[in-house]
Amino acid sequence: MASLTKKELQKKYEEYKAQGLALDMTRGKPGAEQLDLSLPMLDLVTSKDYKTLAGADTRNYGGLDGIPEMKEIFKDFLEVSSTDEVIVGGNSSLTLMHDTLARAMSHGFPESKKPWGQQAKVKFLCPSPGYDRHFSVCEHFGIEMVTVPMTDKGPDMDVVEKLVAEDKTIKGIWVVPKYSNPTGITCSKKTVKRLAKMTTAAKDFRIMWDNAYTVHHLSKEQDELENILEACKKEGNDERVLIYGSFSKISFAGSGVAGMGASASNINWMKAHLSMSTIGPDKINQVRHARFFKDFKGVQKHMKKHAAIIAPKFDAVIEILEKELGGKKIATWTVPKGGYFISLDVPKGTAKQVVKLASDAGVKLTAAGATFPYKNDPKDENIRIAPTLPSMGEIKLAMRVLAVCVQLAAAKK
Amino acid sequence: MASLTKKELQKKYEEYKAQGLALDMTRGKPGAEQLDLSLPMLDLVTSKDYKTLAGADTRNYGGLDGIPEMKEIFKDFLEVSSTDEVIVGGNSSLTLMHDTLARAMSHGFPESKKPWGQQAKVKFLCPSPGYDRHFSVCEHFGIEMVTVPMTDKGPDMDVVEKLVAEDKTIKGIWVVPKYSNPTGITCSKKTVKRLAKMTTAAKDFRIMWDNAYTVHHLSKEQDELENILEACKKEGNDERVLIYGSFSKISFAGSGVAGMGASASNINWMKAHLSMSTIGPDKINQVRHARFFKDFKGVQKHMKKHAAIIAPKFDAVIEILEKELGGKKIATWTVPKGGYFISLDVPKGTAKQVVKLASDAGVKLTAAGATFPYKNDPKDENIRIAPTLPSMGEIKLAMRVLAVCVQLAAAKK
Repeated sequence: MASLTKKELQKKYEEYKAQGLALDMTRGKPGAEQLDLSLPMLDLVTSKDYKTLAGADTRNYGGLDGIPEMKEIFKDFLEVSSTDEVIVGGNSSLTLMHDTLARAMSHGFPESKKPWGQQAKVKFLCPSPGYDRHFSVCEHFGIEMVTVPMTDKGPDMDVVEKLVAEDKTIKGIWVVPKYSNPTGITCSKKTVKRLAKMTTAAKDFRIMWDNAYTVHHLSKEQDELENILEACKKEGNDERVLIYGSFSKISFAGSGVAGMGASASNINWMKAHLSMSTIGPDKINQVRHARFFKDFKGVQKHMKKHAAIIAPKFDAVIEILEKELGGKKIATWTVPKGGYFISLDVPKGTAKQVVKLASDAGVKLTAAGATFPYKNDPKDENIRIAPTLPSMGEIKLAMRVLAVCVQLAAAKK
Repeated sequence: MASLTKKELQKKYEEYKAQGLALDMTRGKPGAEQLDLSLPMLDLVTSKDYKTLAGADTRNYGGLDGIPEMKEIFKDFLEVSSTDEVIVGGNSSLTLMHDTLARAMSHGFPESKKPWGQQAKVKFLCPSPGYDRHFSVCEHFGIEMVTVPMTDKGPDMDVVEKLVAEDKTIKGIWVVPKYSNPTGITCSKKTVKRLAKMTTAAKDFRIMWDNAYTVHHLSKEQDELENILEACKKEGNDERVLIYGSFSKISFAGSGVAGMGASASNINWMKAHLSMSTIGPDKINQVRHARFFKDFKGVQKHMKKHAAIIAPKFDAVIEILEKELGGKKIATWTVPKGGYFISLDVPKGTAKQVVKLASDAGVKLTAAGATFPYKNDPKDENIRIAPTLPSMGEIKLAMRVLAVCVQLAAAKK
């Protein structure tokens, strides 16, 4: 499409604004149609039938690390080698991740000389753009965030290797390894190997491997991710990685089941802490999940139904970006094969302005900067687009408004 | 019953031992018959019907502090004045309590000068005998526990007032205010008033008010507990108390709903922290509870059914204690009007021995000392009896064995 003049863009923008839109593209929430896919699960546990496969009564206290059949599913889901390397918890992997760092701060890991909270400085590497809630947890605990560039193969490993080798206050790194939030990339085989192998000055260094989108493909063409725990074990760094995942974007976002995978000794460390704060997770909800999905293949099969619903939404976003901004050299965007986001880079220094313009026209986007530590995108160029929740009509309209805002901001610049 | 000689007791003990018993009186778990009472709840949410009263879709993320109807129930359940003074969480009040102290350690309360974890010493008053998991949490965080005697009116307030007035490192006190674990007492009106009014050297002092058994009456004759939040507000100490409760011993022990009540500013403090670790609780399970109980009266009505099941078990324990140990001046025990425990005091210095004797004869009891800080009962005299889980036959048999063990230990002494 030919470029419009600034005046024409302004006119178009005012026309949208006059429509009094109220569109929300902010968060990676599943849409109602996706949630419908798991509805039959709600009928699978009844007053007459609530036991585990082995016949255990799920209604009482106990079972700190989950029911056996759900541990089996998580073993395959998180790609660990045995159920001793799994904890199945409550409804939120964010809670498991937050609590892991809370415990590292208050107590440290087994090989920590002191609790992290008693050390003068603790830093974390934050490949960016990344997931805002990871960064919030670090900020909350006073963990200094060091921004590392995100490449199309994962975190920039030249930078990562250098930093972790030199600085023993760097205690960990956040990674969304597959269909990353927000850039949609998957760590390459080499990146995984380098993460597993690299020398870290901190003996208690941890990779927070948030595999949130491991089965969240958008098409048949799928990314493959190397097995990080295996890779770490091969290098003799068994304790290095903590893997997280959940059913929030598989079954119900509020009523899913979350889990953690790691070496048996890391799992035992976590269980010892868990035993202080709970007598066990909601096992009845775990039965619902185990019955509905049966096994990991059942999960994979189910995710094809999700893809059928959301892939067209992603396509619509890409199509409009292509049509409205393609060839204009003012923006670039990702075309992910999975996950929940499209990452849009607008002209440097205009992301905040674009988000403001869109907001004023009734299109809510994730705050510019949210995908960086301290909410500060140094280039002010990244915008995260979350197309799953709105309807197709809403997405198209929102994207057209956004495209005008991007051009307008570029023209003003 | 006439006293037996040591030799006769030993013979009786050996006879029990020879039976190869395997009875468990250790933990305050509801029995299967109690869990059955709430089974219809599992049929109240189906694939066709999972919304809140207001029609909100409970399947997605969000609703950090719970669904409106469950907040209403918890408002009455925790006796706070508005739903702004409530958080409805996941399945465990222990998690809420643990996380409260974890956050006090890492961040402190709003009026804390520094996070508790950065202060040279932090102490907690622990009225004892008390709940072992409270003490574990303190020990876990390195909070020094100061044992305070438990009276039949609650914590010994003369001791409490003196300590908290003098020592600013004393940051809080644990209280199970009603049908306490394990002594079954309820704080008197005066105790509640004194707790609310007392001068504390620590400005960020908190009462951890674990009202675990607020509706867990055993008979029509019920204890009344003063409203602690109201009492605190009356004294201008609005921020002093944090109230906890759960449905673990009302609906399902593993799949209940827990909540916290406090001043709106304490609740906001907790919510700010919660927002770092979760996007919201399992709202579908909250709908199940709200539909099943309807309102707080529904909860109270339901608890009468529990009482009908467990009161005879308590009666059986008391009856056997009376018959076997009554008048022998070697033991005293509580006769609670509610809660989950009977507290048995045996001759000084013999509790551990009694528990060991019982264990050797196949009757598992809560470890002696568990009801005191650092698992150390200075008088080695307290034993907690949990009669809800075993069957009536098991209880009677276990109590007869226990009675012999108590007499045998006393005779040896």
